[in-house]
Amino acid sequence: MKTLKVAVVGAGFWGRNHVRVLSELPNVNLVAVCDVDRWKADEVAGKYGLKSYDNSREMYEKEEIDAVTICVWSSKLAEETQKALKYGKHVLVEKPMAHTVREAQKILKIAESENLKLSVGFIERFNPGVKRVKEAIQDGFIGIPVLATARRVSRWPQRIGDVGVIKDTAIHDIDIIRFIFGEDPISVYARVGRLQHERFEDYAQIMLTFPHDKAAFLEANWLTPYKIRRLIVTGSEAIISLDYITQEVTIETPKQTITPRHEWEEPLKIELSHFVDCVLNNREPMVSGIDGLKALKISEAALKSAAKGCAIKIKF
Amino acid sequence: MKTLKVAVVGAGFWGRNHVRVLSELPNVNLVAVCDVDRWKADEVAGKYGLKSYDNSREMYEKEEIDAVTICVWSSKLAEETQKALKYGKHVLVEKPMAHTVREAQKILKIAESENLKLSVGFIERFNPGVKRVKEAIQDGFIGIPVLATARRVSRWPQRIGDVGVIKDTAIHDIDIIRFIFGEDPISVYARVGRLQHERFEDYAQIMLTFPHDKAAFLEANWLTPYKIRRLIVTGSEAIISLDYITQEVTIETPKQTITPRHEWEEPLKIELSHFVDCVLNNREPMVSGIDGLKALKISEAALKSAAKGCAIKIKF
Amino acid sequence: MKTLKVAVVGAGFWGRNHVRVLSELPNVNLVAVCDVDRWKADEVAGKYGLKSYDNSREMYEKEEIDAVTICVWSSKLAEETQKALKYGKHVLVEKPMAHTVREAQKILKIAESENLKLSVGFIERFNPGVKRVKEAIQDGFIGIPVLATARRVSRWPQRIGDVGVIKDTAIHDIDIIRFIFGEDPISVYARVGRLQHERFEDYAQIMLTFPHDKAAFLEANWLTPYKIRRLIVTGSEAIISLDYITQEVTIETPKQTITPRHEWEEPLKIELSHFVDCVLNNREPMVSGIDGLKALKISEAALKSAAKGCAIKIKF
Amino acid sequence: MKTLKVAVVGAGFWGRNHVRVLSELPNVNLVAVCDVDRWKADEVAGKYGLKSYDNSREMYEKEEIDAVTICVWSSKLAEETQKALKYGKHVLVEKPMAHTVREAQKILKIAESENLKLSVGFIERFNPGVKRVKEAIQDGFIGIPVLATARRVSRWPQRIGDVGVIKDTAIHDIDIIRFIFGEDPISVYARVGRLQHERFEDYAQIMLTFPHDKAAFLEANWLTPYKIRRLIVTGSEAIISLDYITQEVTIETPKQTITPRHEWEEPLKIELSHFVDCVLNNREPMVSGIDGLKALKISEAALKSAAKGCAIKIKF
Repeated sequence: MKTLKVAVVGAGFWGRNHVRVLSELPNVNLVAVCDVDRWKADEVAGKYGLKSYDNSREMYEKEEIDAVTICVWSSKLAEETQKALKYGKHVLVEKPMAHTVREAQKILKIAESENLKLSVGFIERFNPGVKRVKEAIQDGFIGIPVLATARRVSRWPQRIGDVGVIKDTAIHDIDIIRFIFGEDPISVYARVGRLQHERFEDYAQIMLTFPHDKAAFLEANWLTPYKIRRLIVTGSEAIISLDYITQEVTIETPKQTITPRHEWEEPLKIELSHFVDCVLNNREPMVSGIDGLKALKISEAALKSAAKGCAIKIKF
Repeated sequence: MKTLKVAVVGAGFWGRNHVRVLSELPNVNLVAVCDVDRWKADEVAGKYGLKSYDNSREMYEKEEIDAVTICVWSSKLAEETQKALKYGKHVLVEKPMAHTVREAQKILKIAESENLKLSVGFIERFNPGVKRVKEAIQDGFIGIPVLATARRVSRWPQRIGDVGVIKDTAIHDIDIIRFIFGEDPISVYARVGRLQHERFEDYAQIMLTFPHDKAAFLEANWLTPYKIRRLIVTGSEAIISLDYITQEVTIETPKQTITPRHEWEEPLKIELSHFVDCVLNNREPMVSGIDGLKALKISEAALKSAAKGCAIKIKF
Repeated sequence: MKTLKVAVVGAGFWGRNHVRVLSELPNVNLVAVCDVDRWKADEVAGKYGLKSYDNSREMYEKEEIDAVTICVWSSKLAEETQKALKYGKHVLVEKPMAHTVREAQKILKIAESENLKLSVGFIERFNPGVKRVKEAIQDGFIGIPVLATARRVSRWPQRIGDVGVIKDTAIHDIDIIRFIFGEDPISVYARVGRLQHERFEDYAQIMLTFPHDKAAFLEANWLTPYKIRRLIVTGSEAIISLDYITQEVTIETPKQTITPRHEWEEPLKIELSHFVDCVLNNREPMVSGIDGLKALKISEAALKSAAKGCAIKIKF
Repeated sequence: MKTLKVAVVGAGFWGRNHVRVLSELPNVNLVAVCDVDRWKADEVAGKYGLKSYDNSREMYEKEEIDAVTICVWSSKLAEETQKALKYGKHVLVEKPMAHTVREAQKILKIAESENLKLSVGFIERFNPGVKRVKEAIQDGFIGIPVLATARRVSRWPQRIGDVGVIKDTAIHDIDIIRFIFGEDPISVYARVGRLQHERFEDYAQIMLTFPHDKAAFLEANWLTPYKIRRLIVTGSEAIISLDYITQEVTIETPKQTITPRHEWEEPLKIELSHFVDCVLNNREPMVSGIDGLKALKISEAALKSAAKGCAIKIKF
């Protein structure tokens, strides 16, 4: 079996999950973990028998690595991604990929010129429920889709300090709705507010207008005392709902309500497995750098809309 | 017991419900029913032992009537309401009360100058579940309210031909959200579409901005193959949901989910009973003409927003 | 249209429901109502424009009546049924039909010799959900049925004073399970208890053994603070559940959970309509006197089992 | 920190779970794994860095071990438990502990005379939901408990070949209901059947009678195409339900339905952690050998009842 030599940059909450999952993939040789906080890197490295670094540049120079996954803070994602690409590594960078559209564009250029795989960590794309929703819509089960409503709310995860709820949280649903509708939104209208966070918006309502009279409404916040992550797509013939957490899909038609039964599968495992597979077999990742760039662009337009109090047209 | 002499104008689907409920109220003497379609009026009058008219003017001149409820088509509501007021009758007019804000204003003036009770048929105000939601919010159960989301969807009721889904359907939730938040929205952004209806929008998405960083999102359509009527209010401490149809309220807190148990009560009975009581005892109806006017104004602003593709400020 | 001249014997809670429903059936000429409590009979008669009696014998002699429905107390059902049959009336008698198997047998004989229709008020047979469960099982949707579990619990209805929870309440499920399995039980094992009722058992657990290795478990009580009425049938391939109250049926298969959507229909209306139809068109009622007799026999065997602490064989 | 030297006997499906969980407990030094199938033992040992044996006697002689958990086939449990006890090891033996009551008694005697801890793997005792049900009942939330209904159904787990559904599956609920009621049943009535299994019953319905008019009904099978594991306790004031799988508890009172929110916790981790703690600190295990013996005795009485077709009294 061909195996891929992988390292993880960032050993925080999410980076550890990457390490855990990568360590179990049969075609991965997990080599090293890197974190600016040396103590964190050492701890994780010790548990999984990896090399430990507090400087990714040093890691790239000393270790033989094919690909990295980047799980650092939002404000450092672009910098680390560029570094990895410049060292010739294939990259899966966590969302939101970069702090600004401009940075994201730079990343895309480098990846393209270096001919490296670049994917963005929109993990919900690998939620089996999303696949089922997409297929049900494609197969015509709900008739003409009219509106997608997404709610993604939770208590504020204190660990996130350098980005607001739109670029951190709503961005998942922005990507998913683009994916499900198979189109890009043409305008956005949004409102944001801040109740507990010191610097960034901690709740947002976003309305996206799509071609062919489709629309989406997104509610995201860090206020709600427990996690809800749901998607409802209203069609002319039926309604399909997804609980992202339980992965349960429900289709309501005039005649009946159906809930298919499926085993829960870990989306991160599917995501990382797919990325590894793309690199090893030279396939295009399902989530491209362009997807990351577009979601970021829509997020920025939403923030601009909220600041100006008017709808913003989006051009790609 | 003091009794009120009442007539019903309009013997269609909803007017018949008025007749059925009024005929059972102990302090009502239901006198007559009127419909331009003589046959309809006769049929209802026969079943309940009432006088039958096909001309309300004639009815007002021949019968001794204190108050009327007006259940004619949307486009005729204002005309019939003005007529009734001019004949000195207290009026409960079905929503949307009038076809335009201008007409509604005229109605309010007449009612005021004639010193007559005027109420608008926002029946959901009398849904016991709405009262429970309002109380829970007032009592601080959900902390600071942030967003109200309302879905009111159903197959197109073919009987409605002279008004779109905003003024016919979404207007219920526009009124309820004003009531629950205890404030008027300051701006509206909306999108509408038409899939099956020949003249009017049959689906709409409306986003309302309220003072103090509250917002509301309304989904209304005549496409969905079965009835859903739901309200969710997200607060900083809890989420409260209402199924308007079952009247079931659910409060989700970090610690638990609670669903109080209550007997279902017919909102129309509570509404008409309240109106009769207000006339008999000279009290102000819970739903005033002003409420009707404001909901209509917001509906018109939503339609204007959809036409222009931008947010519209609302001033009262 | 042929119409049937009907009277109702018993103007209590349930008799009034009979009157309300019969008064709306197009092929019924509801003539009179009778109750030993004259005041009750008069009140109902006044509301629906009927003749009022406090003595059924007198009613049968003075009025022209084809059929009666009998809604008196359990301890008086047999007596009133015999009287009606002797006067040549077709009878729908409320469950449990008689106080003892012996009385029930006598009733059956009279009905047969007089060639009169006799049906017993097992209203759940006319619950549309029961029909759907029966059809699903017949169509093989659940594979081989193994166990039916019925729960029928509620707060003690104070109006019931002359019979325990088995003959009043569990008897519904005894009949339904016979109907659904299409067979009679061969033995019964039961336990009963009394927490609040002064004379009769107010909770019971009954286990029925059927041929071909099928079994049923019934829980019935008057203790539970609110109404639950549910049936679950476990099969070798799927599970089918019914909420008798909402009439919602759910089928759980290895692949999915399906809940068909149906309008709620009033079982009493279907039941009385069916009975009237059987008399008018000389058809056999779906629920026969034999069904009443068998349910009573099983109930008595359950009480005997509980008293003796052992399983009792049932022979028909 | 004191640590306990532990070995696992049996490296099948469930033994591997023991190894996984024990390897993560901080106060455990997991030494070895043993399976008659050498290949299985080696595989697990390799993954977790343990010693591997195919003969437990050899393991006890060569390794320094304080305690073992025994996860072999039901028919071998008693033999392996006796061996371990004779070698002076504390033992947690998987249910049903032994194949017969007689064997179980022998085990208890040895454990007592050797002064060793003995516990039985009734894992549901460590389901946090069970604790909540027990506490709610003790705190009087449901009034007087009247009936416990347990359903534990699933597709036949092919790996189980040496015991029927009562001793393998229903035994969990037998133990739980004893625990929740705080009493032993005084009689049992049961029915069993066999649809797919070659030797043993694959479905069973069991009715247990407890003192003070409490009863329990248990449904267990290996026919139902997917897993359901539920417990409902009906009380005079409320009903409490548990989904063993999601650990969700629901309390239905006349006023409301409450579902407390809790994080899911792995029962096996709590169970093994408790056992280790009991050995290290010389405390009595929550599930004693007596509990195992009693559950087995009730299981045997159920099988006897089914064979004889009558209720069987149980004496301890």
